Amino acid sequence: MRTIELRGNEVILIDQTQLPQRLVRVRCRSAGEVAAAIEGMKIRGAPALAAAAAMALAVTALRSRARTKERLLRELESAGRRIGRTRPTAVNLFVGLERALSAARAAPDVASARAAVVQEAKNIAEEDVRVNRRIGENGAALLDVGDVVLTHCNAGSLATVDYGTALGVIRAAHRAGKKIKVIATETRPLLQGARLTAWELRREKIPVTVVTDGMVGYLMAKGMVDKVVVGADRIAANGDAANKIGTYSIAVLAKEHGVPFYIAAPLSTFDPNLKTGAEIPIEERRPEEVIFFRGVRVVPKGVSVFNPAFDVTPARYITAFITEKGVVKPGELSKLFKS
Amino acid sequence: MRTIELRGNEVILIDQTQLPQRLVRVRCRSAGEVAAAIEGMKIRGAPALAAAAAMALAVTALRSRARTKERLLRELESAGRRIGRTRPTAVNLFVGLERALSAARAAPDVASARAAVVQEAKNIAEEDVRVNRRIGENGAALLDVGDVVLTHCNAGSLATVDYGTALGVIRAAHRAGKKIKVIATETRPLLQGARLTAWELRREKIPVTVVTDGMVGYLMAKGMVDKVVVGADRIAANGDAANKIGTYSIAVLAKEHGVPFYIAAPLSTFDPNLKTGAEIPIEERRPEEVIFFRGVRVVPKGVSVFNPAFDVTPARYITAFITEKGVVKPGELSKLFKS
Repeated sequence: MRTIELRGNEVILIDQTQLPQRLVRVRCRSAGEVAAAIEGMKIRGAPALAAAAAMALAVTALRSRARTKERLLRELESAGRRIGRTRPTAVNLFVGLERALSAARAAPDVASARAAVVQEAKNIAEEDVRVNRRIGENGAALLDVGDVVLTHCNAGSLATVDYGTALGVIRAAHRAGKKIKVIATETRPLLQGARLTAWELRREKIPVTVVTDGMVGYLMAKGMVDKVVVGADRIAANGDAANKIGTYSIAVLAKEHGVPFYIAAPLSTFDPNLKTGAEIPIEERRPEEVIFFRGVRVVPKGVSVFNPAFDVTPARYITAFITEKGVVKPGELSKLFKS
Repeated sequence: MRTIELRGNEVILIDQTQLPQRLVRVRCRSAGEVAAAIEGMKIRGAPALAAAAAMALAVTALRSRARTKERLLRELESAGRRIGRTRPTAVNLFVGLERALSAARAAPDVASARAAVVQEAKNIAEEDVRVNRRIGENGAALLDVGDVVLTHCNAGSLATVDYGTALGVIRAAHRAGKKIKVIATETRPLLQGARLTAWELRREKIPVTVVTDGMVGYLMAKGMVDKVVVGADRIAANGDAANKIGTYSIAVLAKEHGVPFYIAAPLSTFDPNLKTGAEIPIEERRPEEVIFFRGVRVVPKGVSVFNPAFDVTPARYITAFITEKGVVKPGELSKLFKS
């Protein structure tokens, strides 16, 4: 089951706001519709956003009436700007856009440019699945039989095209017979851990227990967590990593309790242009995400709310990165980017 | 406005599950009704539970038809056992019961025993308000002009008979013109921070911003928190302190960022019978509190949930305790209990 697919001249994606109640797919017929789906969190997760961005351009290309390559490029660039304004933190979204645009630019004429964008969107999706499987294999070796692994938010199938990064590691270890148990933090405000991670793991009969975000310290103090594996949205050259808000708190707690803290992410999540995490743009989302819960007000009127969607975990808290090229410590990141 | 009162032969209390939507009072006409209100979190907060426990016995005494002191004592002890089974962690509940029972036992006959229980319940309530004001004054001296104070859960008027412990400190500093700003963690699963702390502070025009529990690390890393002040449910002889789940995580983060971490609590919250926090019983509550959010399922069916209601912060993370007898470091606690 793919989280997102290009089918004909439509992008078909699972509406993640409806889970766990309903497994519903929505169709997007334009870049604008894909952009709205991204803004509304129908699709989220850094690797999935790379595919969504490229597919948005593919749909634009397929529906374009442009008769010249230049005209098509202008339409694609306009669509790309719209997609680029949706969410600032996950670098993969911009990588997906740039790959699709570059493919079009390199083509000799309008017909081949159109085909190249579509092909590149498909390539990104297929690569994502392959890369996640490799991340899974590489990370599974770090997990021991019977480990209890804590994960935050959702870095699973639903955050990617399929298989997942952090949950890919857990899946691979599970399939290798390691009898892994998972603790999923519910991940306020949008509850991706409770709604999405628990749903994915339950479908595959991987044992999962949901806790609130505030319980992590207690669980670690009780010795109930063996390892932490999470995903990332953007990783700076020095290894500082942005991920869903709450990740940094978990990393500090892991260090305090001697629990290894791993980030599973494809190379496309690394942004070597940024020296440190201080340069990563952090999205602030609408306060209503915290104020209302499915329409019920939980914060009194007139009270302000702060709603950053991500935080940055400094490299010193990260035991290692699990990538498709292997497991790499923060101090050794430059290895990954040598040609 | 009192959170809980003995009026005639009824206990009148604010139903905190209805806030912030509705300010509703409920009447309890028996110890069983008080016990149900405690179990259902209509009333909560360690100091408020001392008053609730004693008032439950007062109502029992006032409605009793016992003609002998022995018979009355048996009824009070039975009511006390019911109250004692409601919630295990906050020691104040047991202190309240014991004080009311001791008053009855010390009386010469049934009429004076009845009167003594009622008087003791009233004494506990009046003392609570006085003690909180002293805690407030003592703690306000620790806060500087313009401080941003983070608090967790609700240690306010609603957790006490009136005024509050942690929020009493904030109120006293605010009234002294210190221009305090408050960050209230929403406090999952029952959202006492978002619903109750924000509501209380908003009523008094003390600036308050609500954040999710997972945002604390990010806020501290950004230098947005000057001090942490929270309440407690039971404090062991060595200074280890049980408080609402999530407190320990905040304490670890505070230490990591050099942010002072204070616990504001009356002496009645100290339990010198327990050597360390490992002996404090930690209540586990129904998984449904996490699974459903105001009636909407957020955790998929078949997924397990762990729901401890408290955690224990070891004394080494606590900068000082703010009590009615002054501000005391964990290593100096024995001073408090010298006669």
